[in-house]
Amino acid sequence: MSKFWSPLTASLVPYVPGEQPKDKTYIKLNTNENPYPPSPKVIAAIKNAANADLRLYPDPTCEDLVKAAAAYYGLPAGQVFAGNGSDEILAFAFAAFFDPAKKLLFPDITYSFYKVYAKLYGLRAELIPLDEQFQVRVEDFRVDNGGIVVPNPNAPTAELLPLDDIRKLLADHPDQVVIIDEAYIDFGGQSAIELIGDYPNLLVVQTLSKSRSLAGLRVGFAFGSEELIEGLNRIKNSFNSYTIDRLALAGAVAAIEDDDYFKGTTAKVVATRERVTEQLLAMDFKVTDSKANFVFISHNRLEAQVIFQQLRDKGVLVRYFNQPRIDGYLRVSIGTDEEMDAFIQALQEIVGK
Amino acid sequence: MSKFWSPLTASLVPYVPGEQPKDKTYIKLNTNENPYPPSPKVIAAIKNAANADLRLYPDPTCEDLVKAAAAYYGLPAGQVFAGNGSDEILAFAFAAFFDPAKKLLFPDITYSFYKVYAKLYGLRAELIPLDEQFQVRVEDFRVDNGGIVVPNPNAPTAELLPLDDIRKLLADHPDQVVIIDEAYIDFGGQSAIELIGDYPNLLVVQTLSKSRSLAGLRVGFAFGSEELIEGLNRIKNSFNSYTIDRLALAGAVAAIEDDDYFKGTTAKVVATRERVTEQLLAMDFKVTDSKANFVFISHNRLEAQVIFQQLRDKGVLVRYFNQPRIDGYLRVSIGTDEEMDAFIQALQEIVGK
Repeated sequence: MSKFWSPLTASLVPYVPGEQPKDKTYIKLNTNENPYPPSPKVIAAIKNAANADLRLYPDPTCEDLVKAAAAYYGLPAGQVFAGNGSDEILAFAFAAFFDPAKKLLFPDITYSFYKVYAKLYGLRAELIPLDEQFQVRVEDFRVDNGGIVVPNPNAPTAELLPLDDIRKLLADHPDQVVIIDEAYIDFGGQSAIELIGDYPNLLVVQTLSKSRSLAGLRVGFAFGSEELIEGLNRIKNSFNSYTIDRLALAGAVAAIEDDDYFKGTTAKVVATRERVTEQLLAMDFKVTDSKANFVFISHNRLEAQVIFQQLRDKGVLVRYFNQPRIDGYLRVSIGTDEEMDAFIQALQEIVGK
Repeated sequence: MSKFWSPLTASLVPYVPGEQPKDKTYIKLNTNENPYPPSPKVIAAIKNAANADLRLYPDPTCEDLVKAAAAYYGLPAGQVFAGNGSDEILAFAFAAFFDPAKKLLFPDITYSFYKVYAKLYGLRAELIPLDEQFQVRVEDFRVDNGGIVVPNPNAPTAELLPLDDIRKLLADHPDQVVIIDEAYIDFGGQSAIELIGDYPNLLVVQTLSKSRSLAGLRVGFAFGSEELIEGLNRIKNSFNSYTIDRLALAGAVAAIEDDDYFKGTTAKVVATRERVTEQLLAMDFKVTDSKANFVFISHNRLEAQVIFQQLRDKGVLVRYFNQPRIDGYLRVSIGTDEEMDAFIQALQEIVGK
């Protein structure tokens, strides 16, 4: 505590990113990064943009990038917003659309940054419990509220909500903004972007961090009705007009345009996930039905925290959440086949099978 | 207006960046960019960082960059914060240190983003008038307040506040955070960084956008006591843990380390500024005493808005502020010698001399 901190600063409980220990080289399956490098066209575009023009401000409207994403998804440019990763966009969206006077709803088991944003903006959050199978039940959101956030697939459960349920959610709350956070949608889910024309209250948030292998570049998108995009721009332009640098803008355009590479690498991640899931089931793990680039697993006999620590000792980092309902689970990012073979072998040594 | 906007969003008056017209090629003297390219070592570092590691998140603590800046300024790393341009850092600082229950003070003529941040965070701003010579008078800040922001040199006046006055300001307000925004300090000013050890209430904010020719990279710093830096980190980690991408981190370290290049280009900008100032004085312009990379000028006879428009027609962009007290002035960034020769020639055609 410091006497110089505002009351807000003193009240915050900041987000804690996944650990990045530097004591030795780990197989890093703890932050849901893509195991494959970004497209060679992305690297080339960035090198090409590393020039004298870096002395100039980037385009504050991100016009080229917004147009590339709009063309890719078949939307008008006015329905697309680009930001410094989906985290920044979510922060902007919480400020833009949610009223401190009303309750904000999101699942009890979900991305842990949501409650941090809520605190930052003085929003009262009500957590809607997932059912016993870790499913979002949209009828449970039928309570008085000022906004809803649902990740799809959810994290860390990896479970997908069908588009029909999202339609129901949007129709149930026509006067509230419903954010569908699709950070992991490209690994087997169906995007809600196609619903934007029908529901002006829908904001879909995506990121290049996972499926485009660009966590290091910090670029994300929001898609929604023009009034929602304008709301995001009002917040952005009251905060920082230039949140994406020239290099990231150039690299992101190339990433969107190289669709073949994107489809190839996501297919590889999905194939590895399916194979690893089979192996885990054979080792007496419970595995949720993942449509993401990670699996959420629980062993029938050994405690998750014990497995977590033993994996760490063997040089494999996964994520353990010391929280009610999910403290029996581990979240494991899907790496390369070689990395997952090493993970499975380490697990076999731990569970004795 | 939209029914989906929060009351906050509806109330905002967002910042408007300097225009970037695309209808033809202009001599761009309107956004205080550096006319010289960044150091070749910066370009090389960025190209080197454009690799497969972009699939991984950047270091959320920006450790290498923070250490480089700390070493350069002779500070412990715990007194340095790195952010996505000084704009983002100022936004974080307004949230971190200023209490909506108390008045925030800044000059009446200053960087126009301050009042935008104030609105974003629900802060009541009281504008302290500069004196008739556009000087900050620190005794005028002796009113009840919850924080102070002063740019040094000020913008758009370009006038420098001596370090002795900043000492007085810091001593007058020991219980409030005083932000000294040094975006332009490297063009002839003396940084307040040397006062940090004496004043735990001092936060100095700088940027690589101007003096390091990296407006396109989006990197800035804050320097201050450890409790202030921790306050900034609390806000950042409640907003977006990764605001600087891997390429910008690598380029920024190289920029800090190439001190010779930095000193050479800033000296060239200063020499051009001094020469242009003489020419402007000879053309019956009033020119404030600039210690920045721009001049703030007023003609004895012609209206600023008229000169602005005629310069624009001749392909030279400068900045005109349609605001009380400064609507007789133009802000002109210092370009290359060739650009400034073209600017002076265009002016001569306009003022007829």
